[in-house]
Formats: sequence, structure tokens, C-alpha cells
Amino acid sequence: MADHDIVVLGGGPGGYAAALYAASAGLSVALVEKEKVGGTCLHRGCIPAKALLHAAEVFRTVEHAAAHGVKLPDGFKAEPDWPAANTRKAGIVKQLHGGLSGLLKRRKVQVVIGEGRLLADGSVSVDGQTLKGKATILCTGSVPRAIPGMDIDGERIITSDHATNSTADKLPERAVVIGGGVIGAEFASVYTDLGVDTTLLEAMNDGVLPIGPDRDVANVLAKSLTKRGTKINAQARVGTLERTSNGVLVPFETPKGSEKLEVEQVLVSIGRRPVTETVGAAEAGVRITDRGFFEVNPTTMLTSKPGVYAIGDCVPTPGLAHVAYAEAVLAVDHFLGENPVPVDYAKIPWVVYTHPEVAWSGLTEAQAREAGHDVVVHKHSFAGNGRAMILGETDGLVKIVAAKDGPVLGMHLVGPWASELMHEGYLAVNWEALPSEVGRLIHAHPSLSEAIGETMITFSGRSLHG
Amino acid sequence: MADHDIVVLGGGPGGYAAALYAASAGLSVALVEKEKVGGTCLHRGCIPAKALLHAAEVFRTVEHAAAHGVKLPDGFKAEPDWPAANTRKAGIVKQLHGGLSGLLKRRKVQVVIGEGRLLADGSVSVDGQTLKGKATILCTGSVPRAIPGMDIDGERIITSDHATNSTADKLPERAVVIGGGVIGAEFASVYTDLGVDTTLLEAMNDGVLPIGPDRDVANVLAKSLTKRGTKINAQARVGTLERTSNGVLVPFETPKGSEKLEVEQVLVSIGRRPVTETVGAAEAGVRITDRGFFEVNPTTMLTSKPGVYAIGDCVPTPGLAHVAYAEAVLAVDHFLGENPVPVDYAKIPWVVYTHPEVAWSGLTEAQAREAGHDVVVHKHSFAGNGRAMILGETDGLVKIVAAKDGPVLGMHLVGPWASELMHEGYLAVNWEALPSEVGRLIHAHPSLSEAIGETMITFSGRSLHG
Repeated sequence: MADHDIVVLGGGPGGYAAALYAASAGLSVALVEKEKVGGTCLHRGCIPAKALLHAAEVFRTVEHAAAHGVKLPDGFKAEPDWPAANTRKAGIVKQLHGGLSGLLKRRKVQVVIGEGRLLADGSVSVDGQTLKGKATILCTGSVPRAIPGMDIDGERIITSDHATNSTADKLPERAVVIGGGVIGAEFASVYTDLGVDTTLLEAMNDGVLPIGPDRDVANVLAKSLTKRGTKINAQARVGTLERTSNGVLVPFETPKGSEKLEVEQVLVSIGRRPVTETVGAAEAGVRITDRGFFEVNPTTMLTSKPGVYAIGDCVPTPGLAHVAYAEAVLAVDHFLGENPVPVDYAKIPWVVYTHPEVAWSGLTEAQAREAGHDVVVHKHSFAGNGRAMILGETDGLVKIVAAKDGPVLGMHLVGPWASELMHEGYLAVNWEALPSEVGRLIHAHPSLSEAIGETMITFSGRSLHG
Repeated sequence: MADHDIVVLGGGPGGYAAALYAASAGLSVALVEKEKVGGTCLHRGCIPAKALLHAAEVFRTVEHAAAHGVKLPDGFKAEPDWPAANTRKAGIVKQLHGGLSGLLKRRKVQVVIGEGRLLADGSVSVDGQTLKGKATILCTGSVPRAIPGMDIDGERIITSDHATNSTADKLPERAVVIGGGVIGAEFASVYTDLGVDTTLLEAMNDGVLPIGPDRDVANVLAKSLTKRGTKINAQARVGTLERTSNGVLVPFETPKGSEKLEVEQVLVSIGRRPVTETVGAAEAGVRITDRGFFEVNPTTMLTSKPGVYAIGDCVPTPGLAHVAYAEAVLAVDHFLGENPVPVDYAKIPWVVYTHPEVAWSGLTEAQAREAGHDVVVHKHSFAGNGRAMILGETDGLVKIVAAKDGPVLGMHLVGPWASELMHEGYLAVNWEALPSEVGRLIHAHPSLSEAIGETMITFSGRSLHG
């Protein structure tokens, strides 16, 4: 007999969201987590990374504060206080962890800390205890990928697990970031802004965010990073790292030739792999894909094993905390016998919290053309936007991809607060709004969002400032 | 015979938007402006005010920078550099003015600088020249209201015209702001943050933003201002101001008793009045309302005089730059013989750029109840929002007013970047979305916008973190 309605294995965003949402629907829930509730996102991912990105933003603000009207001492030159940034970050993580733990408690979720394993009958064993639910949700997450032969020591050669939990008393003077995806780009942005001589090595043809965003948008980020000092190398093949007395020697080849850089730190950010092999799932009858993910039916999030759902980074969908939230809601609603709307992965929101921020929802121009749409594109730079000028952050643009005489297919942003502005576009993309339907709703003046409104108006063939 | 398709009288937001939009539609346009294109908004209103508000934001950031990870000298205490803030502001205004002038030129709008007057045949005379259009658009704007007996000298007793164009070498030590509306609240916020001992006197029952926003939202602003040091007095009756050798003596009465404050500066911000009497309009046959506005048909923006439109602050609609833009588009589309959708004034976006920012669209809870809706309200504080914690700005909330089992009627925000986050709610309000339709679209994590998503989900009776 089941002790619970739902047993959740893994306490990251997918797992805690499933537990909180199920409990709010009146279900009895147990949540098994091997370390701390909150998972990668809270302890080694999104939250600490964004806290450090904000430290970089504050740093940039101080650097420019005199021009904005703050008296600073003569000859003042801003210097980062890395331990202070990390202390503040740790405080936020601690506060959020406390809040989450309290919320789980208030909703009467039974939280069990320990390494859980799925058993053949669908129950979860943890430290000799067995938790049996009417359903089980696997949210076992992911870990950073390593490159064979690169000995991750957490000090000289690190992953985001370490970069988000630095105990160093200062930043490295020189660093190499291997991998220009979201994590690599975000850390390159932080390091560059805080004065680290940063080299980014990316294997693919585009050095920054090679997969995902529209190129027009990614190119603005690449240009801004380059202007600020990041050395971006695309098509880079990294050789065998060598320890030296002061750091690491990084040999790499690009179409421009061979180079060897000695740096104090190498951040390896070449992606993440799902955690699926060590939790007893395959033995219990859950099918695992060739790429190591739990196989799921995307309309229900059920695995091949009846009564067992899987969500989050351990399934082959975009590895984003909010996607895990959406999948958690879907799985719980399905468990409740409802007929939930599946997640439309082609229209989810994407955010990269670099400076400038990059965010999008829907199809890129290239994707829209590939899909056979008769595509119309309009762009609007932040250069003439009054509020962007006031902020002193005019690097950026809005790019809207629409079907000819049809709906908005994709909204692409790079620039100040793109992460937040994007949500308006996210509604427009998901509701398949016509540009004219958004354009006739005049945006507040002055606002960054006006750039979205101006772009939408431009589809009419007329324009205001655009 | 007409020389132009459209002659525009007044070069503020309504006027320049009408000119730019009409020109983009291929029309021939003349624009008459008595000072500089851009009008109040660009030269004495929104733009310089927001630049000063941003200076205050940079100042607050520097004050807290050490905790965020920036080394500052021992014993450092931030001090405002008022001339620097004003220099930067003036530079932005100049750049935007140059951009606007260039854009008008590129679109071949004939700009005539001089005091224009409407003539009986609908043409506009300016400095002996007569400009005849097939239609005329009046956008004569507004000026700050004065209180009889208060001698505005631009130095000790000022309006926003002067506050946005300060040439003082420092801020006053003590100031009184008369009027707690949008302009008064914004300047009280700037002054307080920059160390001015600021007293706000408001005649109505609520001291801050007495008209407009939902009270729950306005109250968060009032509490934050009070916590930072603004002395807010509601139901205040101001007596006759007296000059002293050092400033101005301000006698006032509140329900708590009588007081007299001596301050260096008094900012009078008791509203604005339309400019309609000095432009020949009444003489030319344009009807003016009892309250001094041009009377217009809101479905066309036509005045009582055929062929003459009026838009912006000189008509009895909300005095916001973007409302003027919307009215400009409406008037031009109507002139073109199209059948444009009128502006839905009940659902426009409102923004107050105080710290924290206030923004809304649609009905307040009180308005929704008055209108007879069966109202459901959900609120979500920024206190538990990860990104707000990272910014260190957790004062704020999202409040959503919906009809029971029906659409979103109003979206109310106070908190970090409310001005931008609001635009998502603006779409939801105008498209009469159900909370469930927004709630099922999971927002990016971590983001401030998540607080909107969480609130929307709560309408389902279930919740994530909410």
C-alpha cells in the first residue's frame, strides 16, 4: 500500500516544484534529496551565477558612477572584492534554501535527505527506508560534463560547480573558459567585467552561444564581450592541459594557428550530462536513451515504467529550471487525471544573463526560414531608446520574426533587462499574436520595452521613431 | 489649396509622433513648435526626470556596493555630485533632441520654429507665414499649474520645469514638495535618495499617488519612502509661503496640527493645465471644455472644428507621452480614411519611476468592485523572489485583479523594474487573458517576472512557490 500519493526522487527545481505543486493540490508527498533541497540551480547553478553576474553589474555601475553624479575620491579605481561578492551570494543561497525548506515543511512534504534508489515496484529506497507512492517522479538532474584527460581539481581546473562556490581570496589574473555556451558565456562576462584577462575557447563556428539564439542577437553579445576585453576564439581545438608551477598551460588550435596560454584557472563548461545511471532506474525497468536521458512521453512526462514520471535535466528536453517547473506541473496534473497541455518546447523562454543579457522565445530567423515560413523580420536597436541612453546601456537590439501577414514566430532580445522584457514577447509568441495586435498597444514612455513596441509597429509599413 | 497633407501645431510627443508617423505613411507634413522639438517630455519632463531618477539609482548602488563586492576606500560615504548628474542628463536630452531633429529631417517633415496660431480656415500662421494642411493637428501640450499667491521664481519656489533643469551647484539641504502625485512622488524619491531632508505635502487622504494606482501598490511606495526618510503628510493644507533670508517658510496644517517648516526649496507639483487659450483655437471655432481642454471625439480625435484634430496633454485624456503617441497614430490613421481602433484609456500603461517603481494597467481592485465585477485578487511579494533578493530590492509586490472565472482586469506592480515588467500584464489586460492562460506559460527562472507567473498560477487554487 502506498504511504504517499507521490514520491519525488531529487530535490532540484523539478523535484521541489513537483512536491510544492502536488502538495498545494492536497496530495501527500515525500521528497528524497541526496544533499540539499534546491539542487544544482540553487546551490551550484542559476542562483549563485546570477548573484555573481549582479556583482559584476554593481562593479560596472561603480566604474561609471562619477559620470552619473556620484562623488568618488580622486584617482579612485574600482577593484573587486571577490570574497565579499561570494559572501553575499552565499547569504542569498542560504536565505532561499531556508525559505524553500520552510515552504516544503508548511506544505507538509516529507523531506528525506539521503541517496535514493528506484526499486522494481516503483518505490524509492533511501538509507534502509522505503517510500512507496501511487506514483514516483524522477528528477535526478545533471552534472557538468568533463573532458577525458582534464583532471578537474576544483581549483586550477574547475567546472561551474566550483566557479559558483569560490572560496578564493581573489580572482585569477588570467583564465581560460572552455565552451562558449550559456555557462561559459556568463562566466566569461563576469570574469571580464571584474578584470580577469579572459580567453574563451569554443569548438564550434561561432564563439559565443553557438547553439540557440538568433545570430544577430548572439553577435551583439560577442561584440560587446570583445570590446570589453574577452578574447573569443571560435573553432578552437583544445589540446592536453599541462600543470605548471603557477597554473595550467592550455594549448589550442584555431584556424589562425596554434597557441599556448598559461593561466591560473581553466573553467570547463562544455555542457552537462544527465544523472540517470546511478539511481537504480534502468534496473527497475525505466528505459534510458542512447544519450543517457530517461525516455519520456512528452504529453505526460511518464517514463516507460508505469507510474514513474521523469522531469527536468534527466530527460531530453531543454535543461532549464523553469522547464523543469513546467514539466513538474504537467506530471502532477496528469497524475491527478487532468488533461494538461504539454510543454511547447519550441516556445519556451530562454535567458542568458551575460552583459548584455540575451533572451528569446520562439523561432530564430534561420529556424523560421528552414521551417518554410514566408518570413518578415524587423529589428530595432536600443541605441536610440531614451531609457537605454539614460542607463548608459545602448548595446542591444530587438529582433522580431513573423510570418508574412501572420503571427509573431520569434522574439529575440539582447540588451539591458532583456531577461525581463522578453516575457512580453513570450506571451506574443505563445498566443500567436499578430505584430499589429501588439503594435497598436502603445508602450510606456520612456521604457526599454518601447523598443519592442516600435519594432511591432514597423511591421505595418509605418513607424514612430523606428 | 493645401501646401501639406497635415500641419501639426506643437512639437512635443503628440506632435512629433503625429509628424513622424504621418510622414512614414507618405504624407507631407509641417510641424510648428515654439521652442524645441521634443516638448515638455524631452526638455522638462519624462526624460530629464528619469535621468535624475537614474542618478539616484546609481547613488543607491554605490552606497551598497561594498556588500555586493566592490572595494571602496575606508570610511567612504557616497556624496551626490549634482552638477555631474545634471550634465549627464543634459547630454542625453541633447542627444535625443539631435536624434529627433535628424529623424524629422530624414522624413522630410518641414519643421518651423515659432509661435503658431490656428486661423479660422484651419491653417496655422507662424511668424507671418501661413501653413495650410488638408488637416491640422493641435498638440499644444500643458504647463505646470501654479497656486495663486505662490510666486514661482525658479530658484526657491520651483516647478518641474525648473527641477528638471537645475543649474544649482548642489541640492538643497531641506525641501518641501507640494503635491504627492506622479511628479511630486518622483522628485521626493530623487531628493530623498540624494540626501535632501524632504517633506511631502499632499492635500488628499493618501499622501503618495492619491489618484490612480491600486492602494496596495501605492502603500508599498509610501512605506519605502518613509523608511528612507521622506516625511509624508496627507490631508495637508498649505498656507501662504513666506520668503526668509535663507529660503522659504512653509506653513501647513494636517489633522495632527499646524507646522511651519523653513526650507531652501519648495517644489510645486500640483498638476498640469492644458495650453489651449493662447493659440487662437477658440477664435477659430474649436470648442474648449469647462476644464480648459480641447473637446475631442475620442474615436477620431477630431475637435468640434472639421479637419482639426487635437491630441496629447491639451485634450482631456491621461497626460502621458505614450497616450499622445497613441492618439497621434489614431488621428493620422483616421485622416487616412482608415477605421482605427480608438485608444482604450481604461487599459493604458501607467508608470511612476519612483524607487520602487509603480506601474499598472487596467482596473484597480476598488474600480473593479465598483464596476460590479465578482472580483478575485491574488498578490505575490517580491520578498521571496530570487532575483529581487540578488538585486537587494525586495520591497514590492504583484497584484492581479481578475473577474471570478474570467479574465485579468488589472495588473498592479510595485518593485524593481515594475515599469518594464508591466508590459506583460498590459498585453494580458488588453487581450482579456485568463489568469490560467498566463499561468501555464512558465516564466524564466530566475527573473522578477516570475512573480507575475506565480501570481497567475495562484488563481488555479494551486501554486509553486506562491
